[in-house]
Amino acid sequence: MSERKVAVVKLSGSLVSPPSPLYLRRLRDSVERARSSGWRLGIVVGGGATARSYITALRELGVPESILDEVGIESAVLNAMAVASALYPYSPIEIPRNVREALTVFEEGLIPVLGGLQPGHSTNAVAAVLAETIGADLLLNLLNGVAGVYAGGAPGEPGARLLRAATYDELENIVRDKRSLAGTYELFDSVAVSVVRRSHIKVRFVDGRDPEVIQRILLNQEDLGTLVG
Amino acid sequence: MSERKVAVVKLSGSLVSPPSPLYLRRLRDSVERARSSGWRLGIVVGGGATARSYITALRELGVPESILDEVGIESAVLNAMAVASALYPYSPIEIPRNVREALTVFEEGLIPVLGGLQPGHSTNAVAAVLAETIGADLLLNLLNGVAGVYAGGAPGEPGARLLRAATYDELENIVRDKRSLAGTYELFDSVAVSVVRRSHIKVRFVDGRDPEVIQRILLNQEDLGTLVG
Amino acid sequence: MSERKVAVVKLSGSLVSPPSPLYLRRLRDSVERARSSGWRLGIVVGGGATARSYITALRELGVPESILDEVGIESAVLNAMAVASALYPYSPIEIPRNVREALTVFEEGLIPVLGGLQPGHSTNAVAAVLAETIGADLLLNLLNGVAGVYAGGAPGEPGARLLRAATYDELENIVRDKRSLAGTYELFDSVAVSVVRRSHIKVRFVDGRDPEVIQRILLNQEDLGTLVG
Amino acid sequence: MSERKVAVVKLSGSLVSPPSPLYLRRLRDSVERARSSGWRLGIVVGGGATARSYITALRELGVPESILDEVGIESAVLNAMAVASALYPYSPIEIPRNVREALTVFEEGLIPVLGGLQPGHSTNAVAAVLAETIGADLLLNLLNGVAGVYAGGAPGEPGARLLRAATYDELENIVRDKRSLAGTYELFDSVAVSVVRRSHIKVRFVDGRDPEVIQRILLNQEDLGTLVG
Amino acid sequence: MSERKVAVVKLSGSLVSPPSPLYLRRLRDSVERARSSGWRLGIVVGGGATARSYITALRELGVPESILDEVGIESAVLNAMAVASALYPYSPIEIPRNVREALTVFEEGLIPVLGGLQPGHSTNAVAAVLAETIGADLLLNLLNGVAGVYAGGAPGEPGARLLRAATYDELENIVRDKRSLAGTYELFDSVAVSVVRRSHIKVRFVDGRDPEVIQRILLNQEDLGTLVG
Amino acid sequence: MSERKVAVVKLSGSLVSPPSPLYLRRLRDSVERARSSGWRLGIVVGGGATARSYITALRELGVPESILDEVGIESAVLNAMAVASALYPYSPIEIPRNVREALTVFEEGLIPVLGGLQPGHSTNAVAAVLAETIGADLLLNLLNGVAGVYAGGAPGEPGARLLRAATYDELENIVRDKRSLAGTYELFDSVAVSVVRRSHIKVRFVDGRDPEVIQRILLNQEDLGTLVG
Ligand SMILES: Nc1ncnc2c1ncn2[C@@H]1O[C@H](COP(=O)(O)OP(=O)(O)OP(=O)(O)O)[C@@H](O)[C@H]1O
Ligand SMILES: Nc1ncnc2c1ncn2[C@@H]1O[C@H](COP(=O)(O)OP(=O)(O)OP(=O)(O)O)[C@@H](O)[C@H]1O
Ligand SMILES: Nc1ncnc2c1ncn2[C@@H]1O[C@H](COP(=O)(O)OP(=O)(O)OP(=O)(O)O)[C@@H](O)[C@H]1O
Ligand SMILES: Nc1ncnc2c1ncn2[C@@H]1O[C@H](COP(=O)(O)OP(=O)(O)OP(=O)(O)O)[C@@H](O)[C@H]1O
Ligand SMILES: Nc1ncnc2c1ncn2[C@@H]1O[C@H](COP(=O)(O)OP(=O)(O)OP(=O)(O)O)[C@@H](O)[C@H]1O
Ligand SMILES: [Co+2]
Ligand SMILES: [Co+2]
Ligand SMILES: [Co+2]
Ligand SMILES: [Co+2]
Ligand SMILES: [Co+2]
Ligand SMILES: [Co+2]
Ligand SMILES: [Mg+2]
Ligand SMILES: [Mg+2]
Repeated sequence: MSERKVAVVKLSGSLVSPPSPLYLRRLRDSVERARSSGWRLGIVVGGGATARSYITALRELGVPESILDEVGIESAVLNAMAVASALYPYSPIEIPRNVREALTVFEEGLIPVLGGLQPGHSTNAVAAVLAETIGADLLLNLLNGVAGVYAGGAPGEPGARLLRAATYDELENIVRDKRSLAGTYELFDSVAVSVVRRSHIKVRFVDGRDPEVIQRILLNQEDLGTLVG
Repeated sequence: MSERKVAVVKLSGSLVSPPSPLYLRRLRDSVERARSSGWRLGIVVGGGATARSYITALRELGVPESILDEVGIESAVLNAMAVASALYPYSPIEIPRNVREALTVFEEGLIPVLGGLQPGHSTNAVAAVLAETIGADLLLNLLNGVAGVYAGGAPGEPGARLLRAATYDELENIVRDKRSLAGTYELFDSVAVSVVRRSHIKVRFVDGRDPEVIQRILLNQEDLGTLVG
Repeated sequence: MSERKVAVVKLSGSLVSPPSPLYLRRLRDSVERARSSGWRLGIVVGGGATARSYITALRELGVPESILDEVGIESAVLNAMAVASALYPYSPIEIPRNVREALTVFEEGLIPVLGGLQPGHSTNAVAAVLAETIGADLLLNLLNGVAGVYAGGAPGEPGARLLRAATYDELENIVRDKRSLAGTYELFDSVAVSVVRRSHIKVRFVDGRDPEVIQRILLNQEDLGTLVG
Repeated sequence: MSERKVAVVKLSGSLVSPPSPLYLRRLRDSVERARSSGWRLGIVVGGGATARSYITALRELGVPESILDEVGIESAVLNAMAVASALYPYSPIEIPRNVREALTVFEEGLIPVLGGLQPGHSTNAVAAVLAETIGADLLLNLLNGVAGVYAGGAPGEPGARLLRAATYDELENIVRDKRSLAGTYELFDSVAVSVVRRSHIKVRFVDGRDPEVIQRILLNQEDLGTLVG
Repeated sequence: MSERKVAVVKLSGSLVSPPSPLYLRRLRDSVERARSSGWRLGIVVGGGATARSYITALRELGVPESILDEVGIESAVLNAMAVASALYPYSPIEIPRNVREALTVFEEGLIPVLGGLQPGHSTNAVAAVLAETIGADLLLNLLNGVAGVYAGGAPGEPGARLLRAATYDELENIVRDKRSLAGTYELFDSVAVSVVRRSHIKVRFVDGRDPEVIQRILLNQEDLGTLVG
Repeated sequence: MSERKVAVVKLSGSLVSPPSPLYLRRLRDSVERARSSGWRLGIVVGGGATARSYITALRELGVPESILDEVGIESAVLNAMAVASALYPYSPIEIPRNVREALTVFEEGLIPVLGGLQPGHSTNAVAAVLAETIGADLLLNLLNGVAGVYAGGAPGEPGARLLRAATYDELENIVRDKRSLAGTYELFDSVAVSVVRRSHIKVRFVDGRDPEVIQRILLNQEDLGTLVG
């Protein structure tokens, strides 16, 4: 699929939090196999349920949305640190706080694992920017129990149908009407679409409950989920 | 206009770079008068011509867009440092690199002056997030030689007409079709719209070539330019 | 109880994670009343259930204990950020990463809220060191559903009895035999005892499920739970 | 002694401060030989006489113990920088301020040299935590003019006898009754014992006045001083 | 002498290292009295004997001069931390590492205490730059056992005579021929002269063995030592 | 010319700002060829016209010289980031802020690109200190449109003549009478001379308008411009 063999893997936070030892071990094994086959990776992890529970409670106290975003960022950083620990010693435990630091880690031959960076940004936008920075032409987006991008409704809604492929414009239309309250970023967002579009980065959305999907796509080139771009 | 008397001022980078001593002095005076009247401010400065010249040159060398964004961020930080110097000693010369730091500066009674923060974000998004964080209900956007928001075309184009007021949706429609290559962010962007919408922050776009406009709006409540929200 | 009116409040992480809006609101109110009455505070929050679930899972993968401690520290930092958000704008959202930074925050008239600092240290040791640094003579330790220090067994065990008062030596004997695997720090630890002993800081252990206990002790001088020192 | 060939060397600060060119040169040579033989090292240096003289003077002014600890930490950092300079260019001159940074240095193939980290912690605890983090199974503790661990009294006291081996429990009993005033940490401390115990790290205490002892132990496997664990 | 009542005090490192409790207490008292009388201060401390002993030893190992300078800087930072501790809680224990940070501390109403900053710079140059930054018009330079600036030879040499006043040019001529090996900076240096000259900052050199000299000069306007400028 | 093949290249800021794609591309190619031939490099970039325009404007507002220096430093950092971007991925985009960080970058096999560091220091002094730190024995100074060091007047003045070689003393005499106002550092400065003299580093001044000069000197050993030392 890609000659340069550089990819970014985005993990839904809910895949690793609450954590299962089995999941983390299989994630480590799948990443390790991709690495041994010559793939160079960056990883971004979402905030998951921890983020959402804090944000919901604090919003009731009238805390500003940007500060709720900061709590979401810190949740994602915690999840990222857990994933980096599972990859020990191939990833620094000190989670990069901007893409310049992530690039330095990548250039040293390690796998940067990131959480969130700044309010207003989802972790999907982080993943898109990281892909640009390290020269990845694939962003592999691991969802939790959703098989890919659905049109005609959210997954599970009547009329919703799984897309096998989509253009950047189609993806943008699907994500456009989502609200942007902290903790409610979904699927992808418009900043992320702009970034992958401007740099011609392909995005593949798959169900990530089995992390072996990473090697199935990177090594075996299986055509799973939805390919955008 | 606002009871809380907290506002964010966004300056087009081109207003201060290349710099004129006269402009900087009048900016300082206008900010100082707003401050004496009880207004608490945050300031964000764009990247201006410096940013654009570097970005254009480096794009020809094939440098990734996110790294071009980093050069744009650093240009904006330089402009911010120059504005902070002009406000000496009311603003720290050490420019905040995230909104948490900016909030700390604000809580100490000083005026945080920011440039850019992260790739994928324009300085307008920074201004919106800063407004949320410090509890501003007005974002005052100083353009360079443009009187406000135009519909029906870019300013100067035939058919373009200045709006006196607009809704968030109208603003979003106007900014939607802009491309997001580094250095070409214009007027406002969709992240910034999302943020001001979610927190009910009003945005006023005015021509900033005379910085006295700050006090005319904050102190005299003159109804200049375009009011959004 | 104290003439200097400086205290450190240590919160069990499980009191705020998973979070309840009601709890956070009452915590904010109780802290606010203590503050209005002239008390100057520092706060330390534990890692809670999030810490323990990550640590348990990652230990199965053979991750070194010090790195598990780092995950626990980051969990406590997330909890601290949530508490700091609830206290907005009286506490910086940027959580101090060492006691020098915490002292600076305190000297600026704000309330530093800390999580963990370094592997090998529990958040109780952080609380003791913070108390020393800001000159607190009381460390108020809020437990989750335990009324104070028990001798003769862990709380709930047959033969366990609640102490109304204890010496540093008695406390040290009670905590001595606990193991120190990451995530299993309990009640207090030997570093924390050493620190409060060397600086004559009193420690009061109480059930913190009702955060009003803070004002009942600081303002009303009620003699609740167990007083050590 | 060890198959993994990863070790941490702890140097008493008094071995390098005041400094002798001869000692530093021989230390460099001994470390270099261990490195050439495949050993990967981390180094921790104590605060020595500088720390103690400052701490004693400042305690008389009533400075809080935690801040005295900070002065001790900075003294140890200075000693660490001197040792790192002597190892130039195999060790970064920028001394790591937490174990996450030290791990990154180690993963880049360099030798992290650390001083102290946080109040309440001795440099022996730092050494134990560093050993855990980089996966060392030996902590080699270089004392100044003491041949190892003594039981039945401090070295030189009547009845004191040198142990050739000891269990973690025996070591803990010996260090237990020491006070923990800043600057008086001795031999080892209870946090350090907990850490080496939980991770099964062996500790060897030897007289470090001749730094060749490093290669005699690591390369020749001589059985010197006291082995704990 | 000065209407603005802002001054920088430069202390020879040898005045505080090795430390005497008596000296530190009297320094604290003298600074406190200046502060109560409305003076706003910054303080810079030299590296003293610790710096020189390390630098001499490491130079014999062939360590580059810039790295020797780094060891000198760290020595000065340690001395600065000790002075900041003595002034607790009026000075942050976290020593500023550049003048932007020092300015922020000063603007918060605290007394920044600095050591060295960058190789090639002496602590006298740091003091001059700090004076400029915080708007001091007096730099008070406390020497150790030398009464002021001598012409016609180093103090104690035959023919040397104490100057009561000197111009910037005369001072520059006196310092010009000194070598600049790390650890041998003396009296003042050419960067420091350039800075005080360009900003019209007066420099007074006095014997600092009795720290009461600070209040005698700032409060009583006694004409001691040598005044330059 | 040099057996160790380590050099520092200092670029006048005006060579890259305003930027030309052609210049940046040829700079990248020339650096790349030097690197392929075994040369290990550090690069320092000046502040250029951007720095001077800001400094001139802000000086009229009475901003302190040290803060003007900070604006100059930030301008040089921006120029450095642009050069580092052009060298992507051989140079970190995160510009080192002190020489310890630069040394770490160099030891990792990358090319550190620096701007300014501290007020009072020119970027020539930075280049000299960097050369010392990374063990360079040549500092190659690329001027903009000037062929080397002139004696008997500034270049272009009647009587000025280009030197082919000069001693450190001759260079010092030439630079001595320059003023040190922020933004007016010229050619070289006295700190820089002191540093290259104390460490026997040769300095070659050449016209840098054609960046191929780097490879002509490093690879072909052409004897261009002026050689000092
Ligand atoms: N059209 C759609 N197609 C697919 N998924 C959609 C669509 N619209 C909304 N979604 C939702 O978006 C979710 C994707 O977000 P997910 O929970 O996997 O990770 P995340 O939000 O990026 O990270 P985290 O949850 O950790 O913050 C899916 O679970 C799905 O329910
Ligand atoms: N519909 C519109 N109404 C008003 N302005 C518009 C519109 N469409 C595009 N623009 C352009 O957007 C510009 C506003 O951005 P401006 O250059 O002033 O600042 P900036 O881009 O935010 O900051 P910087 O210039 O520092 O990057 C105007 O100059 C104008 O030409
Ligand atoms: N003798 C004892 N007396 C009281 N409590 C004890 C005793 N021995 C063990 N404990 C346990 O110690 C616990 C105190 O720790 P708690 O979980 O409340 O906070 P923490 O561990 O400091 O922070 P976190 O939960 O966030 O990690 C009590 O819940 C209690 O079960
Ligand atoms: N039972 C004992 N066996 C051995 N040494 C002991 C014992 N009790 C106390 N000591 C003292 O502990 C000291 C060990 O500390 P040492 O001075 O070597 O380094 P450090 O304290 O770790 O570092 P620094 O002195 O630099 O702070 C020995 O010198 C010894 O006098
Ligand atoms: N012409 C001179 N007049 C006065 N002092 C001189 C002269 N020439 C050299 N000196 C020396 O300069 C010294 C001043 O430096 P001092 O050691 O007091 O502080 P420092 O070097 O700035 O700081 P530190 O000692 O901490 O490095 C005096 O002790 C004096 O011996
Ligand atoms: Co394209
Ligand atoms: Co609403
Ligand atoms: Co006592
Ligand atoms: Co075990
Ligand atoms: Co003048
Ligand atoms: Co020589
Ligand atoms: Mg989600
Ligand atoms: Mg000791």
